[in-house]
Amino acid sequence: MTADRATPAAPTDPADLVLTEVRLTPVLIADPPLLNTQGVHQPHTPRLIIEVVTAGGATGLGETYGDTEYLELARPLAEAMIGRPVTDLNGLPALAARVCGDSPAATGADAVDAGGLRGVRTADKLRLSVLSGFEVACLDAWGHATGLPVHALLGGKVRDRVEYSAYLFYRWARHPGGRGEPDDWGAALDPAGIVAQARRFADTYGFTSFKLKGGVYEPAREVAAVRALAAAFPGRPLRLDPNGAWSVPVSLEVAHELRDVLEYLEDPVSGTARMAEVAAGTDLPLATNMCVTTFDEIAEAFTRGAVQVVLADHHYWGGLRNTRELAAVCRTFGVGLSMHSNTHLGISLAAMTHVAATVPHLDYACDTHYPWQREDVLTERLAFRDGHLDVSDAPGLGVTLDRDRLAALHRRWLADDGGQRVRDDAAAMRVADPGWVTPAVPRW
Amino acid sequence: MTADRATPAAPTDPADLVLTEVRLTPVLIADPPLLNTQGVHQPHTPRLIIEVVTAGGATGLGETYGDTEYLELARPLAEAMIGRPVTDLNGLPALAARVCGDSPAATGADAVDAGGLRGVRTADKLRLSVLSGFEVACLDAWGHATGLPVHALLGGKVRDRVEYSAYLFYRWARHPGGRGEPDDWGAALDPAGIVAQARRFADTYGFTSFKLKGGVYEPAREVAAVRALAAAFPGRPLRLDPNGAWSVPVSLEVAHELRDVLEYLEDPVSGTARMAEVAAGTDLPLATNMCVTTFDEIAEAFTRGAVQVVLADHHYWGGLRNTRELAAVCRTFGVGLSMHSNTHLGISLAAMTHVAATVPHLDYACDTHYPWQREDVLTERLAFRDGHLDVSDAPGLGVTLDRDRLAALHRRWLADDGGQRVRDDAAAMRVADPGWVTPAVPRW
Ligand SMILES: [Mg+2]
Ligand SMILES: [Mg+2]
Repeated sequence: MTADRATPAAPTDPADLVLTEVRLTPVLIADPPLLNTQGVHQPHTPRLIIEVVTAGGATGLGETYGDTEYLELARPLAEAMIGRPVTDLNGLPALAARVCGDSPAATGADAVDAGGLRGVRTADKLRLSVLSGFEVACLDAWGHATGLPVHALLGGKVRDRVEYSAYLFYRWARHPGGRGEPDDWGAALDPAGIVAQARRFADTYGFTSFKLKGGVYEPAREVAAVRALAAAFPGRPLRLDPNGAWSVPVSLEVAHELRDVLEYLEDPVSGTARMAEVAAGTDLPLATNMCVTTFDEIAEAFTRGAVQVVLADHHYWGGLRNTRELAAVCRTFGVGLSMHSNTHLGISLAAMTHVAATVPHLDYACDTHYPWQREDVLTERLAFRDGHLDVSDAPGLGVTLDRDRLAALHRRWLADDGGQRVRDDAAAMRVADPGWVTPAVPRW
Repeated sequence: MTADRATPAAPTDPADLVLTEVRLTPVLIADPPLLNTQGVHQPHTPRLIIEVVTAGGATGLGETYGDTEYLELARPLAEAMIGRPVTDLNGLPALAARVCGDSPAATGADAVDAGGLRGVRTADKLRLSVLSGFEVACLDAWGHATGLPVHALLGGKVRDRVEYSAYLFYRWARHPGGRGEPDDWGAALDPAGIVAQARRFADTYGFTSFKLKGGVYEPAREVAAVRALAAAFPGRPLRLDPNGAWSVPVSLEVAHELRDVLEYLEDPVSGTARMAEVAAGTDLPLATNMCVTTFDEIAEAFTRGAVQVVLADHHYWGGLRNTRELAAVCRTFGVGLSMHSNTHLGISLAAMTHVAATVPHLDYACDTHYPWQREDVLTERLAFRDGHLDVSDAPGLGVTLDRDRLAALHRRWLADDGGQRVRDDAAAMRVADPGWVTPAVPRW
């Protein structure tokens, strides 16, 4: 029990941790024609890549939503970050509120986000979604400056690998109108197609739990797909997420029919009041990334027992540290925790993995769209093994930016006529079906 | 917006952050004859000083309860810490549960701690109280190793100074039986004595809010003391804390009588159910460090609206990071936050100040016993100015251990016949009043 050395190694000079440069690069990334209740994914989805540099020369990467309204908030925040230490994270919400102002895109209403199915669109939440990319970039730079992985800056990992689930979608083989880049997955529009898709996910990545994005077809058809999955993968955890498309009675019916095979039912209805009604009528846990998406929404939902699992998303919860606080709130109220995903690249996946590694009571495999994204801005893509990602112990996030790839995806964004700079699944659907309007809920 | 340097400074080698040495030093510190509902402070109070050393030579200090049952848990944890990095904090609760076992002192019941008025005594809570001292020592060492203040490791300060309140006590001039070290404060047993004590606190330290420890005399006498304070310090925030000694009707009567001068009423009754009854009958906020002292106690209390302010204590909540999580839970449920104090030294005060500096919605001045402790183990005592402590930006906690003082206070612990190695306010009272037994609640 004696120290190996008498004098400490020279610590980092805190002045080295001050931000001297922040770069914002919007990109468009290829996205397959995945169907959901609002329409279909556009051929390309906007993301924002954030790079920070400290006075000491450490660099950090962040990623968040790249839709125009997020970019508009990110620009003044990027300016305001210059001169601040990367450790100064508790002050970010107040800074963002001061410099970003309220986005005109904020509605404050209970309306579901038109593109992202991300719950309410308040000014606070839009700012938090932007801020989260800067927080991750700061943590990455802090890690590089001090030699520590991001999980250590969050208090240390409690597991060496993080489990993810296969994210199954009804999908077309190609985008309508010959748009976008083709892939080799083919169409999946019925139970056999969904099972084949699940099989490929299992074989390629080793996933052993499966989530089906529902709300696309009438509930009986989606129930049949889940039943087919249960038959093909007996005993495996299954989930179904119609993004709030159903009525309370339909939800209760589906919950009853699938009670023996679902680990949870995700957002069967829209809004906390209806979720509470469904929860009162079934023993099946209800999960959400739509009715509890901000700290302000928690008290009512938890008090009413409306949700049993919160699907955290560090983007709109305001970063990795806020995600840990959400986890603490959930643990305190006996509510389960897992992670939500929108279309994203490897920087976000690395960030998700670091924070997930630090949360003791992460109860379920996390969602990720990553296997659907064949493009990335990293020199090396993150690789799933046995359905898990290893938690990196390298400094920061443990990922490296590929400037050529970033430049290429940015050129695509520059070349866009504007139609894809804001995610709009209904607009994409209208290419195939000119009469399409976003369905009112409940749709069934 | 260009980096000052092209290459990063050499980061810390993570291997340097591994703990190579942990030292535990129990001490007895002088404590004045402060009265509370269970008896009187003993002439000396046990505390445990924790020192850690990393492979890189960085040192860290922690402090927690020093009662024998805490020491017994601390010893195996100290052994188990060797070889772990100081950043590995999320794993501490599981480690402590594995190596400490359950203290026989844990009751798991709703019984109030006999000595400390600290709420329930579950095995979890005793372990968390011990673990918190190690967590603070790790953060201090981490800060020294990387040149960062502890507040930066918690995500950065949101204020440059933290406000504390004057902690007023009914007290005798001397300990009975000629024990202990005398001080020059004299007795305070009536409204005039309490006002004089408050005046000295205000003049010496600049405190502008005042808390009276009650539950000592019949409620009317304590109400008169608070009225006298209100007259002497018009408009200043006042608090009264009888440590659960009252019935619901008495509490409602006092709340009504003092509604115009108290900022909150602290633990008027014992237990969440009775707190909820009182809360339902008054608009005066109720604060607690007795019925909500663990994460397990939160859901019922918050759902029932039993408390409006939680007085956090990083010792029994399990450290500075857990305190921040508690703050997040409180903020989410619209419950206020301030800080509780037991008899403590400068290490704990520095730790409280760092975490308090990082919490945006710290709503009230924090409690501290520190001015009553004339002894310390630091080379330099922390100094209040205008009722505030400046938040240190020096590496770690920003305090330095005085080995001579530590050794002297440890010798006092070694010389003790055992009577003061466990805090027991009822035993101390029996020196003056041999027939004294801890009063049952409600006492009035
Ligand atoms: Mg969902
Ligand atoms: Mg109290």
